[in-house]
Amino acid sequence: MSVNAHLVGQSENAKDIPIKSEIWKTLNWRAVLAEVIATMLLISLGCMTCIPIDGFASHPMYGPLGFGLIVTFNIQAFGHISGAHMNPVITWAAVIWGQISWILGIAYIIAQCIGSIIGYGILVALSPEGFISSGVCTTTPLLRYSIYQAIGIEVVLTAALVFITCALWDPVNKDLQESSSIKCGLTVAGLSLAGGPLTGAGMNPARSLGPALWTFTWRSHWIYWVGPFLGATVAAFLYKCIWLKVDKIKPDIPTWPDGSEGLAKIL
Amino acid sequence: MSVNAHLVGQSENAKDIPIKSEIWKTLNWRAVLAEVIATMLLISLGCMTCIPIDGFASHPMYGPLGFGLIVTFNIQAFGHISGAHMNPVITWAAVIWGQISWILGIAYIIAQCIGSIIGYGILVALSPEGFISSGVCTTTPLLRYSIYQAIGIEVVLTAALVFITCALWDPVNKDLQESSSIKCGLTVAGLSLAGGPLTGAGMNPARSLGPALWTFTWRSHWIYWVGPFLGATVAAFLYKCIWLKVDKIKPDIPTWPDGSEGLAKIL
Amino acid sequence: MSVNAHLVGQSENAKDIPIKSEIWKTLNWRAVLAEVIATMLLISLGCMTCIPIDGFASHPMYGPLGFGLIVTFNIQAFGHISGAHMNPVITWAAVIWGQISWILGIAYIIAQCIGSIIGYGILVALSPEGFISSGVCTTTPLLRYSIYQAIGIEVVLTAALVFITCALWDPVNKDLQESSSIKCGLTVAGLSLAGGPLTGAGMNPARSLGPALWTFTWRSHWIYWVGPFLGATVAAFLYKCIWLKVDKIKPDIPTWPDGSEGLAKIL
Amino acid sequence: MSVNAHLVGQSENAKDIPIKSEIWKTLNWRAVLAEVIATMLLISLGCMTCIPIDGFASHPMYGPLGFGLIVTFNIQAFGHISGAHMNPVITWAAVIWGQISWILGIAYIIAQCIGSIIGYGILVALSPEGFISSGVCTTTPLLRYSIYQAIGIEVVLTAALVFITCALWDPVNKDLQESSSIKCGLTVAGLSLAGGPLTGAGMNPARSLGPALWTFTWRSHWIYWVGPFLGATVAAFLYKCIWLKVDKIKPDIPTWPDGSEGLAKIL
Repeated sequence: MSVNAHLVGQSENAKDIPIKSEIWKTLNWRAVLAEVIATMLLISLGCMTCIPIDGFASHPMYGPLGFGLIVTFNIQAFGHISGAHMNPVITWAAVIWGQISWILGIAYIIAQCIGSIIGYGILVALSPEGFISSGVCTTTPLLRYSIYQAIGIEVVLTAALVFITCALWDPVNKDLQESSSIKCGLTVAGLSLAGGPLTGAGMNPARSLGPALWTFTWRSHWIYWVGPFLGATVAAFLYKCIWLKVDKIKPDIPTWPDGSEGLAKIL
Repeated sequence: MSVNAHLVGQSENAKDIPIKSEIWKTLNWRAVLAEVIATMLLISLGCMTCIPIDGFASHPMYGPLGFGLIVTFNIQAFGHISGAHMNPVITWAAVIWGQISWILGIAYIIAQCIGSIIGYGILVALSPEGFISSGVCTTTPLLRYSIYQAIGIEVVLTAALVFITCALWDPVNKDLQESSSIKCGLTVAGLSLAGGPLTGAGMNPARSLGPALWTFTWRSHWIYWVGPFLGATVAAFLYKCIWLKVDKIKPDIPTWPDGSEGLAKIL
Repeated sequence: MSVNAHLVGQSENAKDIPIKSEIWKTLNWRAVLAEVIATMLLISLGCMTCIPIDGFASHPMYGPLGFGLIVTFNIQAFGHISGAHMNPVITWAAVIWGQISWILGIAYIIAQCIGSIIGYGILVALSPEGFISSGVCTTTPLLRYSIYQAIGIEVVLTAALVFITCALWDPVNKDLQESSSIKCGLTVAGLSLAGGPLTGAGMNPARSLGPALWTFTWRSHWIYWVGPFLGATVAAFLYKCIWLKVDKIKPDIPTWPDGSEGLAKIL
Repeated sequence: MSVNAHLVGQSENAKDIPIKSEIWKTLNWRAVLAEVIATMLLISLGCMTCIPIDGFASHPMYGPLGFGLIVTFNIQAFGHISGAHMNPVITWAAVIWGQISWILGIAYIIAQCIGSIIGYGILVALSPEGFISSGVCTTTPLLRYSIYQAIGIEVVLTAALVFITCALWDPVNKDLQESSSIKCGLTVAGLSLAGGPLTGAGMNPARSLGPALWTFTWRSHWIYWVGPFLGATVAAFLYKCIWLKVDKIKPDIPTWPDGSEGLAKIL
């Protein structure tokens, strides 16, 4: 979930400012660090909404709404810095679209996985003993669903997530970005209401990785890599080939208001 | 639910760009395809929020909020391409208002019905055996409501939906469209909270068609065509005659930022 | 709940367009009719969220969230026409602020009361027998609360509602109105979560009038006139005297985009 | 929670208007008074959502959603006047960032504590006997969490809250402020869904102070000062040092539309 909301919003000034390519290297680590922290907060706070209290599972609205609103928070807080992908498949779609370079894409994905592992680790440290064995927030399909059905559900959910991300990246919408964080957050909440009870509504391999690693819950874990990458690839290509009409996507390069330098040249 | 949000938002540039009428035909199928996919996702994801888990009906907030947020997602993802009607009666209101041509209107309505049938079909394929017989997400009125009362409820709900759509189409609001997707989604959520427990809050014949076809639940199905069309007709004419004051509605023709061609000339 | 959102958003053009005072009379009835319909939909749809199903009270989130989202809908649909007050005390605050004339204020309040009575009447017509005796959606304080406490709660809730309305009327915010409908709707939802279980969170004499009249529930009804008017008066004067700094409020006069005539001259 | 949303939105005009420093003193008390009233309403209305009804605890969604939406209301109503901090640690972050002066910061924090105490006092006055002994809305960690874990949770929650506040203060976002109140409110709702069941999701020493003082619940009260201040300090410095690139933050000085004087010179 992502959208270079604020980046895009700055495009008017961008044209008349020369980009020094050295700056890119300097600024790069700031964006990668933002991905680590954003994903870390997504997992530690999102999964916190799923903790059972006094033996009772958390209220069925807590998980979906909690994850959605934490996504809103993260995109608002870090979207203008790194795009706040927090999700390898969003980064993958950004690479397909040429929004970010391959090298930055790989750095982002590693950062997201590290962030997820740290995030769940923080939750383990902040919880009473026995937390790990309870397997809170791990993603596993309901038993009565076949593997193919679980993958299919993840494909549909992730395709939807990538469709809206692409729509927000589409230059046609570049001046309509003010509430992108809310739109993405509500979308994640909606998709989690749909798929959450069935497969956990992963839609994000990094999100599944952290809890799986700490709790050693590897059953069906591969589903949460295959499904999302499949859905994201289909959606990103479909949108790009059918609805995106500019010959080459020229991502907007944001700069500071005083025009002194680029914030994050992500090409 | 719809609103040509992003289309309208582009009107400043639209005036100085000549529209080649051949383009309209080329672009047309892209908008129709977007309607198929948007309605497909609306039904497969919206109805997914209503699936009972382990024999228990889904939480009473899941359906209304889920449908509302999926509508937000769809309008954000496809609104700038086709208007994201996803609903024959919204398309009908658009025809009444002269937003789209009769021919495109009919194409949209067929696309929506196909999308709904595919959407529910996907859900059937992704669910364990016995899903069809459980009749998830079909719209039928509560037994203690008479047919006239059920139609009346659908009329009021759909009229409300069409009022807000017309307000977003009204040229007076053309610069206030940034969060149209959120506004429409929250409206659908609100109307579903109101009518959902009574009639299922159809408000959309295509939405009712898919589940009815797969589950052979035709009892009272006609209510969900008559009620919404009646409500939409009343609301669209009422708004147009009383509150819309321009002599002829001139829909804005959106173009790509580089001005190369029109995205979707929908007149 | 209200805010002349869209009206205010049009102020740039307003200055250079002469207002013909005859138009005011012509247009006036359109705004008053909008108040009737908006209040009618508020009551019929809002109260519909509170109907018990199969003998069980509606889910505790349905009422507050439903009313809030219906308010969002109404302000979006009718805000640019009449301000979508739907509430005598908002109209009263508008009169205090000089937003609308006394004469139009009285017309609005009568329209709101009529709309509320019609709205609940529609609900009665669309419900099975025995609906009236169940007293759905009437506002009465919990028995363990004294009359003074109930009035006090209504005063605080309504003061909050009027504070945000005044903030949206404040010229300092005139360019920040795009999502006014969402802001007002979420505020009403929040205030209803707070006061709903205690007093029903009236905050609106017209909203209380319709259900009271149809169900003959006049016990404590006066509380829902005295409390809201008291709260609104305090808040409107407090904001106007302390935080509003322009000498005289000059309400923006909206016009159609083509500049042909004023939409609703409400002074 | 805060953001000088509307203040920032006015920056275009600000440059060409000389600020008279005497005005600052005159206007100062208006901002401080706004903090008192905003915090008062936050506590009285937010805590009202947590009142048990007929012996049953309030619905688990009421508290988090209620507090979030009341925050939305308060920022919309008072954000353009004082920033609507309502929270000593947000004020502390504003001081770190140079958004407001030390002296005004101290005044704000005192105002917030007074507002909280008055706010809970209003709730006591408006409730039946026995309200104080029920300890509604006091913040205490779950017993099975150690003190270090409770502090850690408050640190993470408050750091998140301050990250988004800093992002909204970041000049790079100064033109994307229209829905700041919604973004902050939804963030507070999300963080409360996460931390609410564990520690009460204080994130705000003033919010904890009022209920603690009236109910004499001082157990663990210090946690709700140490945790939030720690989290806020870390987040404010981290954002300022890593992601904020302008040499010196130059807060925008808002003025009235007529340019007559500054609304609140808060430097």
